Amino acid sequence: MVPHLVTALNGPLLDLEKKMLAATPAIERWFRLEWQEHTPPFYCSVDLRNAGFKLAPVDTNLFPGGFNNLSPEMLPLAVQAAMAAIEKYCPDAKNLLMIPEAHTRNTFYLQNVGRLMQIFRQTGLNVRLGSLSPEVTRPTPIELPDGSTLTLEPLERSANGRRLGLKNFDPCTILLNNDLSSGLPAILEDIHEQSLLPPLHAGWAVRRKTNHFTAYDEVVKKFAKLVDVDPWMLNPYFARCEGVDFNDHTGEDALAASVDAVLAKMRKKYREYGIKEKPFVIVKADAGTYGMGIMTVHDASEVKELNRKQRNKMAVIKDGLEVSDVIVQEGVPTFEHINDSVAEPVVYMIDRYVIGGFYRVHADRGNDENLNAPGAHFVPLAFAQQHALPDYQAKPGTAAPNRFYMYGVVARMALLAASLELEKTDPNPEVY
Amino acid sequence: MVPHLVTALNGPLLDLEKKMLAATPAIERWFRLEWQEHTPPFYCSVDLRNAGFKLAPVDTNLFPGGFNNLSPEMLPLAVQAAMAAIEKYCPDAKNLLMIPEAHTRNTFYLQNVGRLMQIFRQTGLNVRLGSLSPEVTRPTPIELPDGSTLTLEPLERSANGRRLGLKNFDPCTILLNNDLSSGLPAILEDIHEQSLLPPLHAGWAVRRKTNHFTAYDEVVKKFAKLVDVDPWMLNPYFARCEGVDFNDHTGEDALAASVDAVLAKMRKKYREYGIKEKPFVIVKADAGTYGMGIMTVHDASEVKELNRKQRNKMAVIKDGLEVSDVIVQEGVPTFEHINDSVAEPVVYMIDRYVIGGFYRVHADRGNDENLNAPGAHFVPLAFAQQHALPDYQAKPGTAAPNRFYMYGVVARMALLAASLELEKTDPNPEVY
Repeated sequence: MVPHLVTALNGPLLDLEKKMLAATPAIERWFRLEWQEHTPPFYCSVDLRNAGFKLAPVDTNLFPGGFNNLSPEMLPLAVQAAMAAIEKYCPDAKNLLMIPEAHTRNTFYLQNVGRLMQIFRQTGLNVRLGSLSPEVTRPTPIELPDGSTLTLEPLERSANGRRLGLKNFDPCTILLNNDLSSGLPAILEDIHEQSLLPPLHAGWAVRRKTNHFTAYDEVVKKFAKLVDVDPWMLNPYFARCEGVDFNDHTGEDALAASVDAVLAKMRKKYREYGIKEKPFVIVKADAGTYGMGIMTVHDASEVKELNRKQRNKMAVIKDGLEVSDVIVQEGVPTFEHINDSVAEPVVYMIDRYVIGGFYRVHADRGNDENLNAPGAHFVPLAFAQQHALPDYQAKPGTAAPNRFYMYGVVARMALLAASLELEKTDPNPEVY
Repeated sequence: MVPHLVTALNGPLLDLEKKMLAATPAIERWFRLEWQEHTPPFYCSVDLRNAGFKLAPVDTNLFPGGFNNLSPEMLPLAVQAAMAAIEKYCPDAKNLLMIPEAHTRNTFYLQNVGRLMQIFRQTGLNVRLGSLSPEVTRPTPIELPDGSTLTLEPLERSANGRRLGLKNFDPCTILLNNDLSSGLPAILEDIHEQSLLPPLHAGWAVRRKTNHFTAYDEVVKKFAKLVDVDPWMLNPYFARCEGVDFNDHTGEDALAASVDAVLAKMRKKYREYGIKEKPFVIVKADAGTYGMGIMTVHDASEVKELNRKQRNKMAVIKDGLEVSDVIVQEGVPTFEHINDSVAEPVVYMIDRYVIGGFYRVHADRGNDENLNAPGAHFVPLAFAQQHALPDYQAKPGTAAPNRFYMYGVVARMALLAASLELEKTDPNPEVY
């Protein structure tokens, strides 16, 4: 249940909603044809921002956690989508090996793992967990709050070194739920006989946000033409800045210039649409996740005036990774609130199907801040709203199913962008 | 909401539930592999009977109506399944022509048509309706109770005679929601450039129930081995009787003998499992649908003692078709009640996916009678029950999701049987 969802949908977005609903058959057919050419990532979650005047993805996660935050009612959709995905990679699959985040006893995260195991079991797979953590040297049970137990087991390569599995468990498919922020573990290398999903280069050891948004530019361009809207309505501006060292001020001028450039482009668009908001950008590590290494900047001068604590926070992210390349991304304020807290929708997909979503809600953050931070909580998208089909009779902006349809379309554009991104960055492109 | 659902689940079926849940990965994998070899019918609904001691399909419909009786919450599952189906037949499909039952202004039926159009539009298709009725000579709007309008249009062959469509509408796929009881219309013949779904030989002009249940025998045999149960637990005995004319008593002795034979086999099984019920058989037309031409028989002598009215009812079914071949099928009493009415589950599938179901409830019928008769009403399977995944911790017989999982498995076995049946009866088998 979304107890009290306030969205300031005004002019431009109402028009977008109307155009998207009218073009539904064309949009769905376009996706269908794109998926003939491109393979979607195995699974994906997309953080969206709805500014009322603009709706855009701001983060595309290829190792989604948080499946436990989706309402249980979406499980059959997830199972159906997972069936389609498994069939594609390994139709006679019997065993699935899942590799979760290492070094975590976070029960929220582990409930996500439990939920994923439940989904894959229901598609007809025996699912077991292999750990990348060196501390897991034998089967290690972990109890979850609901009384169920997960067992982490040590990974092992087969006698001939060609396959990865567990003791007495030879999987056909290996599913990563570990974003590889700390680098590519040797034990995952040179796996050619089994499907490793997503591929290693989807991990943050290799992946770059700017590659993703470059691919997204391409996708939106086509889509905007199809639906006849300004691509900016769906796409945040961004710039890439290399060789930044926050601790010793290296690259600060170049970063400030990038911030200026993005803000200038935004101001032009804000004038064009009569938007009164104060523009801001988000500066983030080009590689990395978990809501770390992120700051909101309203003016280029702020970049030079960071204090020691702020510099430290930007310089090092998850798993101690040092930041040197950053993305300067147009900030999309969120106009969605639940009670008095700002909220942003997160949409989940398996294969090419939207299977559910929730609102990430943060009571202590502003509408121009990152919400993926300690203190966030999650409100599943109301079932009745989430699952009903668009209502073509409804007045634009009034029907939740219509809004969620838009969210699903934009999330799938990000999914398609991820697919293009992975193709372009594949070290072994011949597999496509 | 299922307000008050009573099912006498006793000994044998509790054991079946336990075995099916334990074997879920094996069962789902088995289906996955079967669907690599066999193409599921485009859509299908299956009437089940749960006797407490036995769970079996009694009717498999390849032109399902009643989509409007499913809860709206199942629509996204239906759309997702329809996307998978369309992709298989015609990935670049733009236009879908649907051919509903002719000569019907039954608004219940037309709401089913409206619901199907809604599902297919959402998969990315322009959907229009072509009528087989000679009275439809120009676009004919029909208003539905919800205020929306369906438009029936006259079918036409293309100038070169090779394609079927409507004026200014050239479909890639033609979907029949008309069971062709009255024969194969000439306008549907020799369509080679477009996908005609389901194929013409799925229509009752050609199809025979006994072919279906022969194929079902095969499917259950494999499944029963996999799960280690007596195939009879999932399969009603049946026999075929040819050349019966109810009006002039032709074939009466042979029919009585068949009834006797099926009852004798049933008595043996009833003794084996200590079932106290009085066995009965259902005599039905081997071709045909709509709950017409059906009678319940407890003793072979009844067949010879039919009165004039009963004979008339059995002799002629939908569209005036005369009955000459019948199927004598083991009767499966239903032990499911909603309030004080007997109920039977109906499971809906698109492609190889279960997308929902409902209970068909009849206040004036007994637990050994056909419920598909005037006066029946429909109770959607409760959402929370229908959509949750099986609960492996629950005590057998206590969790609705576990029962609905069983129903989905048995319905999919009937779906698989339909697929084998259509392969075997295909007049142009080379397409497989």
